Amino acid sequence: MDYKGRLARARLALQQTRLDALLVTHLPNIAYLCGFTGSAGVLLISQREYVFFTDGRYTEQAHQEVKGVRIKIQPGNSAQAAAAEWIAKQKSWRTVGIEAAHMTVAERGAFAKGLPGKARLVAAPAIVERMRMVKDSAEIARIRAACHLGVKLFDRLLEVVRSGVLETKVAGDLEFEARRLGVEQMAFSTIVAGGHRSALPHGRASQAKLPARGFVVCDYGVILANYCSDMTRTLHLGRPPKEARRVYQAVRDAQQAALEAVKPGTTVGEVDRRGRNLLQGLKLDRFFTHSTGHGVGLEIHEAPRIAGGQAEVLRSGMVVTIEPGVYLPGKFGVRIEDTVVVTDSGCEILTPCSKELTLL
Amino acid sequence: MDYKGRLARARLALQQTRLDALLVTHLPNIAYLCGFTGSAGVLLISQREYVFFTDGRYTEQAHQEVKGVRIKIQPGNSAQAAAAEWIAKQKSWRTVGIEAAHMTVAERGAFAKGLPGKARLVAAPAIVERMRMVKDSAEIARIRAACHLGVKLFDRLLEVVRSGVLETKVAGDLEFEARRLGVEQMAFSTIVAGGHRSALPHGRASQAKLPARGFVVCDYGVILANYCSDMTRTLHLGRPPKEARRVYQAVRDAQQAALEAVKPGTTVGEVDRRGRNLLQGLKLDRFFTHSTGHGVGLEIHEAPRIAGGQAEVLRSGMVVTIEPGVYLPGKFGVRIEDTVVVTDSGCEILTPCSKELTLL
Repeated sequence: MDYKGRLARARLALQQTRLDALLVTHLPNIAYLCGFTGSAGVLLISQREYVFFTDGRYTEQAHQEVKGVRIKIQPGNSAQAAAAEWIAKQKSWRTVGIEAAHMTVAERGAFAKGLPGKARLVAAPAIVERMRMVKDSAEIARIRAACHLGVKLFDRLLEVVRSGVLETKVAGDLEFEARRLGVEQMAFSTIVAGGHRSALPHGRASQAKLPARGFVVCDYGVILANYCSDMTRTLHLGRPPKEARRVYQAVRDAQQAALEAVKPGTTVGEVDRRGRNLLQGLKLDRFFTHSTGHGVGLEIHEAPRIAGGQAEVLRSGMVVTIEPGVYLPGKFGVRIEDTVVVTDSGCEILTPCSKELTLL
Repeated sequence: MDYKGRLARARLALQQTRLDALLVTHLPNIAYLCGFTGSAGVLLISQREYVFFTDGRYTEQAHQEVKGVRIKIQPGNSAQAAAAEWIAKQKSWRTVGIEAAHMTVAERGAFAKGLPGKARLVAAPAIVERMRMVKDSAEIARIRAACHLGVKLFDRLLEVVRSGVLETKVAGDLEFEARRLGVEQMAFSTIVAGGHRSALPHGRASQAKLPARGFVVCDYGVILANYCSDMTRTLHLGRPPKEARRVYQAVRDAQQAALEAVKPGTTVGEVDRRGRNLLQGLKLDRFFTHSTGHGVGLEIHEAPRIAGGQAEVLRSGMVVTIEPGVYLPGKFGVRIEDTVVVTDSGCEILTPCSKELTLL
């Protein structure tokens, strides 16, 4: 990964602001900029230098992972406290940018208390999140590898989704296969939601048994080499009633409509509108109770959000999910989701895998 | 779970402050107070009523899980926006308490913008976290069940930890067994760190192979009925050198010393000191680079922190980990961890399982 280039670009973006420095505290942003994958650290970017602060637990890991950045570890001190002390010594600094979307009010208070001088903490623009929205080729290769592994897991799902099996058992089999294929961890709590539980958009695997007849929503992702995958398929146990077939086809068509809208220059709001319009024509739009998708990368949910009214314009290299769903409360739900990368002319589906209504 | 009693106690605590209402935004705090387990919601507690806000994805789940609380869902609006609108309408309110340790600076800004009236947002005391520190009998029963399941998994570890096996394979076997036993999800990324990787206090399972000879740190937890378990055992592959035996025994003795200090009335700082002192006598304390432990409950890390200088006093019903470790950079590491519940006279170890040096 091109950490040197990323740090330089972040510094360049910093020059476009009035900030003397940027305090990067969001761990995925830190991982993106300098490669550190531990759970405690602060990265400070100024025009003069890059400094990474962490605590004693990460001495060895920081030196293994972080290159081209000064590493500061103060025994007995947290990364935050060490960074505040460092900033307090920079007498000429007036404004330090913080990541307001990730720093808590309490953390901000503690930092501010450590700065008796003139330096003020101000909300910085989302410099790193905006950089991360467009993936470079090394990142796309990793996300593709994670997604293709996710597709392989689908074969396992087809073997284990059966009437009477516990949802947690299905998730366990899926995750075991993922581990066997080298996965570091799942990207989020695996969703396996059968029967009327499929009407819960976030029905993570429970101790419920899969029904004799009904939908099973399976939504899962893996993390491979720090990058996430995300996909959803909805299977059906037994013979589907007519309404189930109709809703399944509607969701599939809505997903296809949204996918066809994905290309550079289109706004994310327009992508959302395309799928939603299709459902509206079938009077199903009020059961599509979430947004169409989200960015995927080092985090399972990152910018951009694919949602109504959002003005963000798609660019080549963005990786997003397209995942409309219809949920009929107390009855059933259907969601179909792919992760795609925006190409020069449209998109590449990173999770190529059958979307036919599959009966088990 | 006694949600009614918890809500009433939170309201009582609120009366001790000058706040007109408490805005609960931290999801585990919401789950604790009203039972909601989804991923988006805001709970507002005032002297007059309890109101829970969520979004359209959680309509069904909110009505299933949340009782005795008014539920507000505004189509197309986030829980945060709906709550801000609600608060803006309470003309007599002057101060609304926020959870400063959990709300981001950006969220605070968005909330404040939605409050053009006189209501100010101020940092509230940690009302819910303090309630959550002392577990009731229903909670202890759940944590005990989760911990005992964790102990069962240790038997599986003894079968699968072998030279040449991938760390991810070991984690996969462990997690598969956990799922088979009904676990909803692991409480954190399973740590399996062999050979020199055992010197990384947080060496989550990687694609490294376990060595022919050396320690393997295994640190894992499960979530069962929403409550976490946490335990660590360190196994040894092949014949241990003298230094390895010495360090293992030192960590074991330090853990025992800390465990013996756990009883109502003792400060957490004193518990930390006992284990650390023992290592100091062996000149190993500088390799014990983290704190002694943390609370466990709905979250894997919660109050109190068992760390040097902390004044929190242990009370019956608190559930904490005791987990000293020694990490020799580039060589190896050892950690031994139990989860314990403070009893009237000492503590009960919730993770009873051999701590003898086990050679595989």
